[in-house]
Amino acid sequence: MASERPVIPLVGIGTDTHAFEEGRELWCAGLLWDDPENAGRGLAGHSDADVVAHAACNALFSAAGLGDLGAHFGTGRPEWAGASGTTLLTEAARIVRAAGFEIGNVAVQVVGSRPKIGKRRDEAQRLLSGTVGAPVSLSGATTDGLGYPGRGDGLTAIATALVYRTGD
Amino acid sequence: MASERPVIPLVGIGTDTHAFEEGRELWCAGLLWDDPENAGRGLAGHSDADVVAHAACNALFSAAGLGDLGAHFGTGRPEWAGASGTTLLTEAARIVRAAGFEIGNVAVQVVGSRPKIGKRRDEAQRLLSGTVGAPVSLSGATTDGLGYPGRGDGLTAIATALVYRTGD
Amino acid sequence: MASERPVIPLVGIGTDTHAFEEGRELWCAGLLWDDPENAGRGLAGHSDADVVAHAACNALFSAAGLGDLGAHFGTGRPEWAGASGTTLLTEAARIVRAAGFEIGNVAVQVVGSRPKIGKRRDEAQRLLSGTVGAPVSLSGATTDGLGYPGRGDGLTAIATALVYRTGD
Repeated sequence: MASERPVIPLVGIGTDTHAFEEGRELWCAGLLWDDPENAGRGLAGHSDADVVAHAACNALFSAAGLGDLGAHFGTGRPEWAGASGTTLLTEAARIVRAAGFEIGNVAVQVVGSRPKIGKRRDEAQRLLSGTVGAPVSLSGATTDGLGYPGRGDGLTAIATALVYRTGD
Repeated sequence: MASERPVIPLVGIGTDTHAFEEGRELWCAGLLWDDPENAGRGLAGHSDADVVAHAACNALFSAAGLGDLGAHFGTGRPEWAGASGTTLLTEAARIVRAAGFEIGNVAVQVVGSRPKIGKRRDEAQRLLSGTVGAPVSLSGATTDGLGYPGRGDGLTAIATALVYRTGD
Repeated sequence: MASERPVIPLVGIGTDTHAFEEGRELWCAGLLWDDPENAGRGLAGHSDADVVAHAACNALFSAAGLGDLGAHFGTGRPEWAGASGTTLLTEAARIVRAAGFEIGNVAVQVVGSRPKIGKRRDEAQRLLSGTVGAPVSLSGATTDGLGYPGRGDGLTAIATALVYRTGD
């Protein structure tokens, strides 16, 4: 951050949820999970259903007051149909910066029983941080068997972000 | 924010959930949603059940360490029974400032299948930002048919806020 | 915070969920809840299942980009088996500081029907703030009878935190 212009931090929040569907590749946190636990047991959706990348987009838009995934990449914007989570996250970061914000950081937690984020955390954090151009942290939590994440019906990601409105 | 006193930012988080109930008006994000999709299909509660306004109150109180909606406006405070979400949010912002905090921003995401926040986002953001006296962003997400938000049984809002403890 | 080194704030998010189980003590927010509503109706888990302390750990790790509860205290780290929530939170704060961060604040909201956080908020906030060495706020919300929190099957906590990377 530039130190001589006033900078105003803004916090945002975003979630995303997709249902698991047999026969799909599992994309999560920008990565293809093709290990035996996850291969062919992916998330449903018109996109790659990467809840981590989508929640990160939502948190960035939320902090900047710029709407949400649906507004930017939804059914009214068919040019983004089928785009990968990292493609959308790249574009979200570009939109936020183009609107006059700097990005501080993004933090995402995956809530569900699989994939085991810890196994590939460093790889995912490097990829996502490079995509956003700012630190992105990734963590996981379970729900002790409760609700749709606990039953393995779906996966949720919840994210928060800090952005800075530059003083220009 | 004053620039010469030290200011200490504090982050908070808050949620609120209400069940849908046939025959009620739908109030959400300070607005009456009386379009065909939502008219007469509102949220249950002693109040107007505005999950967005309530989650925003909770996030502000959380950041300031001042408790929650129940502590300030709950059954022990009957003078607030039936108050609108925006009335409570006005009062929450006043309480937070009276305790020595400045409000940075509030970000709220609605999780559920309806109303479609994007259709009235600008109107809602203007109203809520005016109510709080600081930027309030509003976004929406769905749960891909999962859980009570996915079944249309209820609506959740999740919010985060930044406040500043002034150095006096 | 030191004022002459540059400090870079980072925000994090974390959740934790445990199922209720008859015959267990209820530990929540560092406190034993042995009142008639809660005595012997605690949360299941190998640990004390303190969702508030665990979510606070997760939010601190998330902000600092240092992983999550499972990475630091999970089954691969048997020396922490059975440790109390406050023991884990003490260690989480130590780990975050040892990695070069200062802790700004932590805010936790409990989502569920019991315990009634408001009854012991001040006591819990003092305890948790002392444990972390920074302000920890605690609030509660319900889900209007919906989902596992509404049915009383389990308890979730959701937390956010600010940390500062010192400029050294």
